[in-house]
Amino acid sequence: MLGIFDSGIGGLTVVKELLRRAPDASFVYLGDTARTPYGTKGEETIIRYALDDAKFLIDRGATALIVACNTVSAYAIPALKKAYPAIPIFDVLTPAIRAATSSSASRIGILGTSATVRSGAYERALKTVRSDLTVTSVACPLFVPLVEEGWLHDDVTRMVVARYLAPLKEAKVDTVILGCTHYPLLQSLIAEEMGSDVTIIDSPKAIMDEVMDAHADLLNTNKDQQFWFTDLQPATASIASHWLEREIEVRKGEVG
Amino acid sequence: MLGIFDSGIGGLTVVKELLRRAPDASFVYLGDTARTPYGTKGEETIIRYALDDAKFLIDRGATALIVACNTVSAYAIPALKKAYPAIPIFDVLTPAIRAATSSSASRIGILGTSATVRSGAYERALKTVRSDLTVTSVACPLFVPLVEEGWLHDDVTRMVVARYLAPLKEAKVDTVILGCTHYPLLQSLIAEEMGSDVTIIDSPKAIMDEVMDAHADLLNTNKDQQFWFTDLQPATASIASHWLEREIEVRKGEVG
Repeated sequence: MLGIFDSGIGGLTVVKELLRRAPDASFVYLGDTARTPYGTKGEETIIRYALDDAKFLIDRGATALIVACNTVSAYAIPALKKAYPAIPIFDVLTPAIRAATSSSASRIGILGTSATVRSGAYERALKTVRSDLTVTSVACPLFVPLVEEGWLHDDVTRMVVARYLAPLKEAKVDTVILGCTHYPLLQSLIAEEMGSDVTIIDSPKAIMDEVMDAHADLLNTNKDQQFWFTDLQPATASIASHWLEREIEVRKGEVG
Repeated sequence: MLGIFDSGIGGLTVVKELLRRAPDASFVYLGDTARTPYGTKGEETIIRYALDDAKFLIDRGATALIVACNTVSAYAIPALKKAYPAIPIFDVLTPAIRAATSSSASRIGILGTSATVRSGAYERALKTVRSDLTVTSVACPLFVPLVEEGWLHDDVTRMVVARYLAPLKEAKVDTVILGCTHYPLLQSLIAEEMGSDVTIIDSPKAIMDEVMDAHADLLNTNKDQQFWFTDLQPATASIASHWLEREIEVRKGEVG
């Protein structure tokens, strides 16, 4: 059974992509909504939270982990692999790097949380694969709250997008990596601002390509689909159902 | 010794007001930056976090508590009083209510986090004191991230302020309560949007009036001033120092 986790509801974009390809897949999802967001926090805290989340999923039967959070992918993969050496662990960063470097990209833009950008993880990984690349990274701390406010096609959001994307336009990037699972919800505004010549790499699609290749066996199972959140509010089920475009039941779990 | 806590750095607006009045006060401050924000979370989580925070401060010698967080003030005061019946506990809500109702206000607007507005705590308290009042509440989830992004005098922030304040202008409120400790940093934009006839109640000032009246003895002490945060990043000390307009040292603590 797949275990999928994120700091909150953002990772549901990965679940949505999984369900599009394998509607009967079995998985347990954890959104750490009681401690969200991770992307504004420090390395030590992010690693501690990632280990708590992985333990929760493994205790519930996960035999492979999808880290559906770029911030965790940027900081905590070595700690997770050390803690669980026998469990396959997929991060969202590696497939996005692969998708970006296999295209004809030469100037790449990264959009991410403050923590992801500060980590330099994308830059290091891109340069390791292709040292000729130019990389420009921008932290976009307002994107997550704008998405959570539901202002997806809004003049305010359009202004914020223009502000954050200005350095990428100035650097004339040809490829943009959406380095946070919330950002695909702003993809049309970002594409509009960047223009149609720029390729946009969407992490949920990239990671599911990778998982489908490696673990097709995990996907055609008995459709045991669990959604756990560490903070549950009256609106959590309807917000999660809205993101997934299907009705789901949610449960409350404790981590840490 | 005073114990002061908030979900993060917002409560430093209360510390700043304390230091303005009593530069030699002794206090221990806790910002729960590892789990911030509280204002997007549910009642059970908020109460649990408030009890953790209070325990941390009492363990470090606090003999009175200032809850410098409106979200905690809206949900967790009964739980805190039950857990610590012998300790004076000041919330930020009560003094703001007192300041608002002692003026000639008749139509009051409340700005707060999603959790504070959902609680209805301000409305209930205002109506208990003066049943003739009309109250309009608006959740402003983007204000905290805008303040933390540092866009205090920015066109984007101006647009968001106009959007959130529209229902208050429509209701022709004569008084606005800034129901979150981050919001005083947007006070000039809010005042500009509302116009000069509207009174703005600033919680840090209101709560320090109350504390000075009740516990003047606590303030002239040996200047033991401690700043603890549950998540510490390279920039935490400089951000906190910037908010307080003085250099401070910060320490890392664990709660929960």
